[in-house]
Amino acid sequence: MSILREQAEACKKASRRLAWLATGQKDRILLQLASQLRARQTELLAANELDCEAGAAAGLSVALLDRLRLTPERVEGMAAGAEQVSRLTDPVGRETAWTRPNGLLIRKVRVPLGVLCVVYEARPNVTVESACLAIKSGNGALLRGSRSALHSNQALVKIIQECLVEAGLPAEAIAGVADLSHESITTLARMNGLVDLMIPRGGAELIKRVVETSTVPVLETGVGVCHLYVHPSADLSAAVPVIVNSKCSRPAVCNSLETLLLDQAVAEAAARLLEPELRPRVRVQGCPRTLEIWPWAQAASPENWDTESMDLILNVRVVRGLDEALEHIALHGTGHTECILTQDLEAARRFQREVDACTVNLNASTRFTDGGEFGFGAEIGISTQKMHARGPVGLDELTTYKYWVEGQGQIR
Amino acid sequence: MSILREQAEACKKASRRLAWLATGQKDRILLQLASQLRARQTELLAANELDCEAGAAAGLSVALLDRLRLTPERVEGMAAGAEQVSRLTDPVGRETAWTRPNGLLIRKVRVPLGVLCVVYEARPNVTVESACLAIKSGNGALLRGSRSALHSNQALVKIIQECLVEAGLPAEAIAGVADLSHESITTLARMNGLVDLMIPRGGAELIKRVVETSTVPVLETGVGVCHLYVHPSADLSAAVPVIVNSKCSRPAVCNSLETLLLDQAVAEAAARLLEPELRPRVRVQGCPRTLEIWPWAQAASPENWDTESMDLILNVRVVRGLDEALEHIALHGTGHTECILTQDLEAARRFQREVDACTVNLNASTRFTDGGEFGFGAEIGISTQKMHARGPVGLDELTTYKYWVEGQGQIR
Repeated sequence: MSILREQAEACKKASRRLAWLATGQKDRILLQLASQLRARQTELLAANELDCEAGAAAGLSVALLDRLRLTPERVEGMAAGAEQVSRLTDPVGRETAWTRPNGLLIRKVRVPLGVLCVVYEARPNVTVESACLAIKSGNGALLRGSRSALHSNQALVKIIQECLVEAGLPAEAIAGVADLSHESITTLARMNGLVDLMIPRGGAELIKRVVETSTVPVLETGVGVCHLYVHPSADLSAAVPVIVNSKCSRPAVCNSLETLLLDQAVAEAAARLLEPELRPRVRVQGCPRTLEIWPWAQAASPENWDTESMDLILNVRVVRGLDEALEHIALHGTGHTECILTQDLEAARRFQREVDACTVNLNASTRFTDGGEFGFGAEIGISTQKMHARGPVGLDELTTYKYWVEGQGQIR
Repeated sequence: MSILREQAEACKKASRRLAWLATGQKDRILLQLASQLRARQTELLAANELDCEAGAAAGLSVALLDRLRLTPERVEGMAAGAEQVSRLTDPVGRETAWTRPNGLLIRKVRVPLGVLCVVYEARPNVTVESACLAIKSGNGALLRGSRSALHSNQALVKIIQECLVEAGLPAEAIAGVADLSHESITTLARMNGLVDLMIPRGGAELIKRVVETSTVPVLETGVGVCHLYVHPSADLSAAVPVIVNSKCSRPAVCNSLETLLLDQAVAEAAARLLEPELRPRVRVQGCPRTLEIWPWAQAASPENWDTESMDLILNVRVVRGLDEALEHIALHGTGHTECILTQDLEAARRFQREVDACTVNLNASTRFTDGGEFGFGAEIGISTQKMHARGPVGLDELTTYKYWVEGQGQIR
């Protein structure tokens, strides 16, 4: 048997022990983890240093090296994250029940999914975050980080497993995947019956690969080609900060703005107000009409409209009204976050209803699509699919339900 | 463009018109459909007669011919079904909302999925049932019935479409798939972006094929290798009718019993009570210990334990306690319905928690896993998967949700 299958079987078996753990016990493990992360910061930073040195020697980009690096602040961030998850409401065991005329009691009970397999890239904090959400939701987890973060992830998983063992639980419930070959992702994604959910957390390419090869259900998160449409009735002076915030506050995340759709009725006026904010720091890629208004912008290529830039790059298109805006979004949107700025309630309602996305914003920055901003606490990502979970994915979405039907010998 | 893609695009476009139809309007369409089905019974029976004749000539089995056949009673059943769906609560637009400290209003709103693709076998009533559930949940539907029911399904879709058109809606919202080739199922199952959910309604082979080839999400329904475990503390005289009902009341459906697990402590006593009920009408396939008790039974083959017989066939195994019963179910169960008969609450709780199935029954027939019996009204099947929908799938599960985030220029 392959090492991966052995790990998955051990994790599945161990997950049954986690499944019905009392909330207080799970929270104590999380708090112990927080305290251990703080206490063993030196050990963690030393392990991380090995990864960073190897990464620098291998010529990783500055951006990747930054995501890989642990600092005392980032270790503290992980510890605080574990504490935060300990304060979230435990979904497991939540129940609705009703009695049928024949006396049957039907109980719909929330239960863990079983084993989550999280596939992610450089950032070591994803190891801790995923483990905390798995523990609190009663699931086992197979953590498949990247080879570049090997030492950091091993050190983190060691601490997590020690906390489990101290609480009398099997270490295998949260496991770092031992085989980091390229093929291991596909192998894991086809372990139906052992792995209950694949969660790729990373770039578009990683997500696409998992979706295409998986026979296990996939929680599709992340890719966001987000649009913002400025309707003729928009308050233009209020529009400027919303647009700038949507694009510039953190361009490398999935809820940042990629394409601005300006209604032709207000395009010139909006452009006048936006120019001083955008021109100095954002590369604008425009449609032909945009280039007439802003000759300093670059011409957008067909691919630009479908690209998540992860950078200070903004596509701009002038559209002939709401219909053309809706059409553009239907064609180029990824089902993440779409926004309309308007004072016209009828236009707003139509936009909200017709746009097929997890979050549709009215007069608010696209950056609000986030578990924390929604008030959910920690999240494992933003789901852009329609089945099971849509939008910010928190603890509830890492569970399923089953029915307990209780009788006294009823027959049908 | 292929005819299938043309139909799917037309259905997607039309589904937007259905999506936000008022409940009253949808209900009027359903009631009109019911009245048209009754009024045009002769036309329907004539179309069905063509299919039945062709089926008989092609040598279809008696069971298949029976499923194919429409009778005045069955037409009345379809009409009554449409009326029943009209009385169900409309899930679309149901909303929970909260306000964040920054003044953002977050509205979580239930919305249709878009386009459902239902793949099914001989029974023409599935055409009407699927169309009614799609209409009430605001979804478009591509109905891919079997070639053997071609004339019946065409006649039914014609009536459904006339009802849509009379209500001012595009006929394409509910379409009979024009290409009934073997490959058409795979083509439909890969139309991501046009088809939102595949729903195979049929035998294990059909479901497996759709699951394995689909890139669109699949609602996996139906295969039920259901177990019933008789615990030492069970009330044996109450056990007999539950076991007989589970196996015999309708053996060809997914919630019927396949394998009886008798605890060794009560196996002989239970067998004595069961023999007069089972021996005359059920073929028993037993483990070696069962054959010692019931020498008239046949020896079970390894495959028997994993087979949904759809017939008056019962596997019987004597187990050495709850652990062995749980192990057997973990190995051979299909996640459908598993039952324990016991008076011991602790054993019951362990069984309910540890068995990984959509429905876990305590002292009640397996036959209760059913939308109607749960009080949900009509159902489109029993989901044996964990994501999105588990157990009886009704209107709610044919919808998803989106977030409407409403502000006054908030930025993050």
